[in-house]
Amino acid sequence: MQFHHHGYVSGDPRVQPAAGTGLDRPTELPDEMDVLIVGSGPAGMLLAAQLSQFPDVTTRIIERRDGRLAIGQADGIQPRSVETFQAFGFAPQIVAEAYNIGWMNYWTPDPEHREHIIRTTRQADYAKDISEFPHLIVNQARVLDYFAEAALRGPGRITPDYGIEFLDLTVHETGGHPVEVKLRHVAGARTGEERTVRARYVAGGDGARSQVRESIGRKHLGAYAAHAWGVMDVTVETDFPDWRTKCAINAEAGNILLIPREGGYLCRVYVDLGAVADDDHHRVRETPLEATVEKANEILNPYTLSVRQAAWYSVYEVGHRVTDKFDDVDVDAEGTPHVFLMGDACHTHSAKAGQGMNVSMQDGFNLGWKLGSVLTGRSGDALLSTYSAERQPVAQQLIDFDREWSSLMARKPEEIDDPQELATFYLATSEFPSGFMTQYTPSMITADASHQSLATGYPIGKRFRSAEVVRVCDGNVEHLGHHHLADGRWRIYAFADRPAQGEASALADWGQWMIASPKSPLVRYTPAGADRDAVFDVKVAYQQRFEDVDLLAAPEVFRPLCGSLHLMNWEKVYAAGDGHDIFEERGLSRDGVVVVVRPDQYVAAVLPFTDADALGVFFSAVMLPQTSV
Amino acid sequence: MQFHHHGYVSGDPRVQPAAGTGLDRPTELPDEMDVLIVGSGPAGMLLAAQLSQFPDVTTRIIERRDGRLAIGQADGIQPRSVETFQAFGFAPQIVAEAYNIGWMNYWTPDPEHREHIIRTTRQADYAKDISEFPHLIVNQARVLDYFAEAALRGPGRITPDYGIEFLDLTVHETGGHPVEVKLRHVAGARTGEERTVRARYVAGGDGARSQVRESIGRKHLGAYAAHAWGVMDVTVETDFPDWRTKCAINAEAGNILLIPREGGYLCRVYVDLGAVADDDHHRVRETPLEATVEKANEILNPYTLSVRQAAWYSVYEVGHRVTDKFDDVDVDAEGTPHVFLMGDACHTHSAKAGQGMNVSMQDGFNLGWKLGSVLTGRSGDALLSTYSAERQPVAQQLIDFDREWSSLMARKPEEIDDPQELATFYLATSEFPSGFMTQYTPSMITADASHQSLATGYPIGKRFRSAEVVRVCDGNVEHLGHHHLADGRWRIYAFADRPAQGEASALADWGQWMIASPKSPLVRYTPAGADRDAVFDVKVAYQQRFEDVDLLAAPEVFRPLCGSLHLMNWEKVYAAGDGHDIFEERGLSRDGVVVVVRPDQYVAAVLPFTDADALGVFFSAVMLPQTSV
Repeated sequence: MQFHHHGYVSGDPRVQPAAGTGLDRPTELPDEMDVLIVGSGPAGMLLAAQLSQFPDVTTRIIERRDGRLAIGQADGIQPRSVETFQAFGFAPQIVAEAYNIGWMNYWTPDPEHREHIIRTTRQADYAKDISEFPHLIVNQARVLDYFAEAALRGPGRITPDYGIEFLDLTVHETGGHPVEVKLRHVAGARTGEERTVRARYVAGGDGARSQVRESIGRKHLGAYAAHAWGVMDVTVETDFPDWRTKCAINAEAGNILLIPREGGYLCRVYVDLGAVADDDHHRVRETPLEATVEKANEILNPYTLSVRQAAWYSVYEVGHRVTDKFDDVDVDAEGTPHVFLMGDACHTHSAKAGQGMNVSMQDGFNLGWKLGSVLTGRSGDALLSTYSAERQPVAQQLIDFDREWSSLMARKPEEIDDPQELATFYLATSEFPSGFMTQYTPSMITADASHQSLATGYPIGKRFRSAEVVRVCDGNVEHLGHHHLADGRWRIYAFADRPAQGEASALADWGQWMIASPKSPLVRYTPAGADRDAVFDVKVAYQQRFEDVDLLAAPEVFRPLCGSLHLMNWEKVYAAGDGHDIFEERGLSRDGVVVVVRPDQYVAAVLPFTDADALGVFFSAVMLPQTSV
Repeated sequence: MQFHHHGYVSGDPRVQPAAGTGLDRPTELPDEMDVLIVGSGPAGMLLAAQLSQFPDVTTRIIERRDGRLAIGQADGIQPRSVETFQAFGFAPQIVAEAYNIGWMNYWTPDPEHREHIIRTTRQADYAKDISEFPHLIVNQARVLDYFAEAALRGPGRITPDYGIEFLDLTVHETGGHPVEVKLRHVAGARTGEERTVRARYVAGGDGARSQVRESIGRKHLGAYAAHAWGVMDVTVETDFPDWRTKCAINAEAGNILLIPREGGYLCRVYVDLGAVADDDHHRVRETPLEATVEKANEILNPYTLSVRQAAWYSVYEVGHRVTDKFDDVDVDAEGTPHVFLMGDACHTHSAKAGQGMNVSMQDGFNLGWKLGSVLTGRSGDALLSTYSAERQPVAQQLIDFDREWSSLMARKPEEIDDPQELATFYLATSEFPSGFMTQYTPSMITADASHQSLATGYPIGKRFRSAEVVRVCDGNVEHLGHHHLADGRWRIYAFADRPAQGEASALADWGQWMIASPKSPLVRYTPAGADRDAVFDVKVAYQQRFEDVDLLAAPEVFRPLCGSLHLMNWEKVYAAGDGHDIFEERGLSRDGVVVVVRPDQYVAAVLPFTDADALGVFFSAVMLPQTSV
């Protein structure tokens, strides 16, 4: 965390100084804004927190509810999401309050007494191997609280406008604020009042029955599966020994997915309510809690549970739907999108793989920096077309994965040859449920793989996987990626070639090009008067041990002056070592390599020092020239 | 973190439900209270946070300033203090915002050019070996903010009464509220108004010129040393390569202790202003910032620094003083104390060993649970005499250590034979500056060492050193000690003998005694109607791997029903394993052992299972019988 460079900060450094539209932000929703976010779910709230880092943009977020979410809904948090929380500054806090999934246990019928279940397998959760971040369970309400705090602490001081319902929108062909939106106040003093506002862009995160989606005529394709589940958040009295461990229970009487919840007592229990007849017409949704508890007891036999308090209960039929396109430009048509769909508004599926909230947040993370870049004139609006192009295939993969996982979960024991099969499937595919399988294909923001061999551990299009390095200025071991905050900036990591600082090297030449060449992205795309690292955060990691690195002899590009006090930033120079070697761990060329990472943490390009111009060419496709520094 | 056992918690689980005096707490300082804390420094604020966990006690804290501390003062945080922050629930947050001391570098004159300094030694900070917690630098203002948050989130909802100055007090011999205190409003609407309030107890944390100390006639013994230091919090332009590393610089021109501060730019610089003449009469305190900066440049030669912003500047003469007794009962007299001194009010010394704030916080931690226990009728008031008895010797040790460290730091280079000497001294004594050397001697709350051999890694009288264990209910690796929150409860750890759960064992017999014997502390001292773990948190750690432990067959004492929902607490059963073995790491007997830990985390007793009565005898000296559960 860096601060004091604009002057001494006495209070909480997480509260950034208000700026731009965050100064004297009107309490009431204005008539005109840059971005209108519809819905304060995970995608919408992340988007608000992200756009709070672009205080020159007017962003408002409306929500039909009259206040914060209190209960229920999603709770599974992938390691990729915890990584994202780190970028928004609240990973340690939420980890401390969440349930940490260490293990997943599998129960099946006892071959001796098939009406009884026995524990067949204990499996360490995939998160232990796949990431430095854990796999958590915490209520969506708390995730939203943390994003709300981040949005309010950012310079844009964004906070939701509660009690406002989205009715309809029209995208006009011209005008600075082409999207006309009809709204209705449904809570507070103005209840019942309808109004029309105008926005440059609208982001619809308004859930499975999205009115934004309906307004732009997008189709939500797919079907409900003929299978129902009862889901309850309960505290109980039980003799089931794995009550505090995640379990997949596959009994003669049906199936349970058991998810312990934060706080040490509560669990979420998904109880299989079986196949739903074609003519059921959703009557299964009327199943009372008592029936679901009774069913759970049948499945848990010889164990029992008796509910002390049910905090939440719902019945759902597994649906798998994905929208054909996530913006308002028709498939195969050309043009600039002005309306975007995120989260459940464009992909719905079962809750049991713990995916929904996570994928939705990544929708918001993908869209946020793009809107910010375009609205601040850093990038042209063609960038916005990449949102649907990137996220729609991810949603399709999610639906496919979830369909397979759901049907594996819902099988009858006699359909299962290998009792280990479920465990094997889950572990083999762990990169997916952990959130790390997304790989964007080449586009204006994802380079081709011609130099991938220089950094085999940073697959282009996948998220930048952090590794430990030593910060030279203080010798502290740091996770390089954890300093990639969600501040809308690109990261350019220079992994040095062999020579020491001050000696002739490919790094030194590249560093000089970066500060001096008219083709350098730093020179072309950093606005006049801004800090040199305002748009691109350029860091170096040397191959030497930190004691052998002379920080003050590192190329000037890695020692920019920052803040209104023009202080040298000491925290951009790193070294390998202290039991780790990022060059080994991430397959980095000893001749050096440049890794470019997007503001949403995905690797955009891998390039050699010797072709600096290629870096310039890459950014010329996405950035707009500024009056240089 | 455990919650939901009183019903579903939707919001921030760190905010505990208000209770007792925290319900409808009056905004204005009342005329009568149980505890009046004078001064909102580290000792006072910790004490407030601790007493917020005793909501049946009326606690108020007054502060002369009209609001929170904004700037300056202490900033060194020992690992023991971070351990304490963990107990108050904010360690991860403050670690994320602090400067982490990884290294300490030593500079001395270059033998070739003695007017130049060179780096002689790099030394990894002691914290790397001595604790799982780091050694931090963060402004006292932020530490106070976090304690203020903890005090306000606790059930007592305590928050400081700002703008009230302490004038004087009189301790009467009789009456329920024997301490009569004169105060004056010095800010706000009532400025100038004097009033008299009454308290059962007063805790004076009102600084080096403590009026509480004067009121009770205690003497602050010691002297100012004839040596002055200029201290400044500055952002600079510099070519000194270790600007972001803690350094002891010992030059021909004088000495600097350099302490990088949180935020990446600011440093605290202690500049040696040399010996002070006997007739100086504190004129050295008028030394201007410019002179101190000039001196710093002479010391840093050949490097230079130029100040961009000085956030804080002060000159002090090193004083070493300690008060003869920390309460109002005269030395060698008998009686119950009603007034206590904490922090700078009873021990003052140089700032450079980074001790002051830390020792002060431990004063507050020591006193807090004792006041809470006495005022809630758990203990008799004899307990309060142990405060001065325990803390005064600690302060004396601190003064002795600091005197040695300060004079080592202030030596001239020609007085130094071995340039490594300073580094060697610092590392050899690291248990002291890290905060772990305190060892209380036998008393009513510290048993003798007759069974110490059963747990050699838990020296009686020293703080309980955490170790990793596996929580059986979910298989997660947990630091056992990190669950010891500052909730005023005693911890009783049963480290099991060899047999498995359900088999005959010394543990099983002891567990039965604990819930059934009239001599058991659980039976005698737990109030009627309270949870079984309301006063004593009793946990077990088995020798077996967690997969082999049958939690539901563990003795009932480790599976209490908790909260208004009477839910079984699953988080009291642990196992060795996962690469660690607490039995090996802490020298625990394989025949089992009971380790008793005080509410302030110090080991009180080590006892065998086979002498359960000894546990009863130990607690009979400190606890008062309650109407049993």
